[in-house]
Amino acid sequence: DLGQQENYFGRETLDRLSAKRTDKAWLEAKQSDADTVYLIFSKLSPMVTSPQDDSTGGENKLCRFRFEAVQDLLQKPATVLVFLGVERRKKPSSSSPSQTKEGVQEPPAWFAVGTDEDAAELLKRCREKNCSFPKAPNRDLLKLSEEEAGVVAQARSVLAWHSRYSFCPTCGSSTKLEEAGHKRSCLNSACRSLQGVHNTCYPRIDPVVIMLVIHPDGNQCLLGRKKIFPAGLFSCLAGFVEPGETMEAAVRREVEEESGVKVGPVQYVSCQPWPMPSNLMIGCLAVAMSTDITVDQNEIEEARWFPRQQVIDSMFRAASPAFTVPPRQTIAHQLIRHWVGMNSNL
Amino acid sequence: DLGQQENYFGRETLDRLSAKRTDKAWLEAKQSDADTVYLIFSKLSPMVTSPQDDSTGGENKLCRFRFEAVQDLLQKPATVLVFLGVERRKKPSSSSPSQTKEGVQEPPAWFAVGTDEDAAELLKRCREKNCSFPKAPNRDLLKLSEEEAGVVAQARSVLAWHSRYSFCPTCGSSTKLEEAGHKRSCLNSACRSLQGVHNTCYPRIDPVVIMLVIHPDGNQCLLGRKKIFPAGLFSCLAGFVEPGETMEAAVRREVEEESGVKVGPVQYVSCQPWPMPSNLMIGCLAVAMSTDITVDQNEIEEARWFPRQQVIDSMFRAASPAFTVPPRQTIAHQLIRHWVGMNSNL
Ligand SMILES: Nc1ncnc2c1ncn2[C@@H]1O[C@H](COP(=O)(O)O)[C@@H](O)[C@H]1O
Ligand SMILES: Nc1ncnc2c1ncn2[C@@H]1O[C@H](COP(=O)(O)O)[C@@H](O)[C@H]1O
Ligand SMILES: [Mg+2]
Ligand SMILES: [Mg+2]
Ligand SMILES: [Mg+2]
Ligand SMILES: [Mg+2]
Ligand SMILES: [Mg+2]
Ligand SMILES: [Mg+2]
Ligand SMILES: [Zn+2]
Ligand SMILES: [Zn+2]
Repeated sequence: DLGQQENYFGRETLDRLSAKRTDKAWLEAKQSDADTVYLIFSKLSPMVTSPQDDSTGGENKLCRFRFEAVQDLLQKPATVLVFLGVERRKKPSSSSPSQTKEGVQEPPAWFAVGTDEDAAELLKRCREKNCSFPKAPNRDLLKLSEEEAGVVAQARSVLAWHSRYSFCPTCGSSTKLEEAGHKRSCLNSACRSLQGVHNTCYPRIDPVVIMLVIHPDGNQCLLGRKKIFPAGLFSCLAGFVEPGETMEAAVRREVEEESGVKVGPVQYVSCQPWPMPSNLMIGCLAVAMSTDITVDQNEIEEARWFPRQQVIDSMFRAASPAFTVPPRQTIAHQLIRHWVGMNSNL
Repeated sequence: DLGQQENYFGRETLDRLSAKRTDKAWLEAKQSDADTVYLIFSKLSPMVTSPQDDSTGGENKLCRFRFEAVQDLLQKPATVLVFLGVERRKKPSSSSPSQTKEGVQEPPAWFAVGTDEDAAELLKRCREKNCSFPKAPNRDLLKLSEEEAGVVAQARSVLAWHSRYSFCPTCGSSTKLEEAGHKRSCLNSACRSLQGVHNTCYPRIDPVVIMLVIHPDGNQCLLGRKKIFPAGLFSCLAGFVEPGETMEAAVRREVEEESGVKVGPVQYVSCQPWPMPSNLMIGCLAVAMSTDITVDQNEIEEARWFPRQQVIDSMFRAASPAFTVPPRQTIAHQLIRHWVGMNSNL
């Protein structure tokens, strides 16, 4: 059942301990704690170390720093520091000696450091080989382990929000960071945004519906390609949820806008945080009620019905497939795979 | 099956025709069209006419205006005009004479007008009796028909966004309205937000998870109350989805934060746009893996396990119930009702 399946970027590696965001003393102690892990981000990209030989397809690893190695960066006014959470403990074993009331060791805390210092200089801080700030997040951030991808999903989303929302949208004034990097407050004491609770002070998340539309015959699915896609790549249709709209209505509207196909029943399957910059991809299956395709030329270059067998061949069998689908780290891939496995004998 | 059930505020009364938002000629023609419907909003509240005798519990109705009645408002620089869409045609009947190629009558367009003119003066424009701009949206906007609630969901969300986001969050400059009220662009030509596509230019929607937590015994549910709730009212727990988080992870985190209860499987049920100011309420059932309750005193005053029979009595049977749940227009109510009907013989 894919409903409980885990998508890339979706792993909750850390316990966010959101109540600690307002606990200044606890945060200060954690910051200089020897166990604390810091990640360094430059232009929203995390420092990673890559396998020397990229052809092995090995994982990138996040470069982890101790307090001493970032202490100077934390002093700079342009630095953004975000408390990400603490490592989740493995299953507590009551026999473990560290579980006694006094000896309880708190698990290590993680912080993200966003800095605009020179990238080449930053890289010198790391002792690992082959370090870099990858340039293409849509490609390079898919090379992490599931655990680290989960951490980067949170960190990059929050940092992207800080970089785009450093002024108060209500009055245009500057803002200051609060709650360990999870809030921005207007510095204009007369601003409306300071009266009551307003979303202007909190990170923004954009819900997006992404859907695999199934042909009324049950044996074909609708995939489309944007002009910017690499040759041969087809994917699920997708679009931003609009104000005053349900997820299901957004699916129906976007499919009709982009392909002209009318959709009936819609079923939620699973979702995926996508930190470029901060989308929540809501994955659905949708049943088509019509089959004629008229693409929205502005957004879609081509959309087609693909027979199930052709999708299976492309994904699993063919050496040089007739078309390709996005990589396994994307919810588009997982939706297609889910459908392919639903009624056929793979 | 509640999965396809419709929640209040969720009706797609209008066809948004989003492609027309950039069609200036079409929009201009529609604005002065005799069939076009205008709604007037003051402080994010729509002008409505109420039944003379409120004790009948009758519906509020939106006051609808023609172009002539709002033409002067549209000239004012502070006015915000939003194109909402056109009325959905009833099932097209091919025999209908108006369906001939030449005689095709486009359905009426709807616009929302947000104005800061004096409210009392605005009310004089309406010929209906008992007109007002209701003061308490959480209560008063629940008195509309399903059709009108669907329109207000979109209109109020977009207007609330304009009222809070009139400055560019990236550089603090003023912005201008575009795309028929669905976009704001920075007036500073050097601003980063003008290079590429950025969410700063589009309406903000905040995804919120709202969940009914079921006791491991299957026969009790967890409800809580905030200090600000009226006496005796209990509801589902709820909370904002955070950056880099799935809906399911948000359910687990918020339930544990607010009640101390650990949650296992989570199942999406249905969602509801909630235009105060612009939330997308994502309704789930969640199965508890623990039962001890420790409430987060900052947010929750009390949380309790309620036996199914007690919930049924409160909702359907008791003249003076031991506790109350939110009204039927809320997704909280629908989630509770869904669970109550799932395994019991109502
Ligand atoms: N929150 C948002 N972030 C970025 N683009 C948006 C957003 N909301 C609406 N858009 C517009 O939606 C287009 C992409 O279309 P779609 O993803 O199909 O809805 C973008 O090019 C923008 O014009
Ligand atoms: N987008 C948002 N809009 C309003 N409040 C938010 C938002 N994101 C986080 N919050 C905070 O979340 C609190 C409500 O808690 P909860 O609804 O349980 O997540 C508010 O009082 C704010 O401090
Ligand atoms: Mg799209
Ligand atoms: Mg769209
Ligand atoms: Mg689209
Ligand atoms: Mg809450
Ligand atoms: Mg919360
Ligand atoms: Mg909460
Ligand atoms: Zn402000
Ligand atoms: Zn700007």
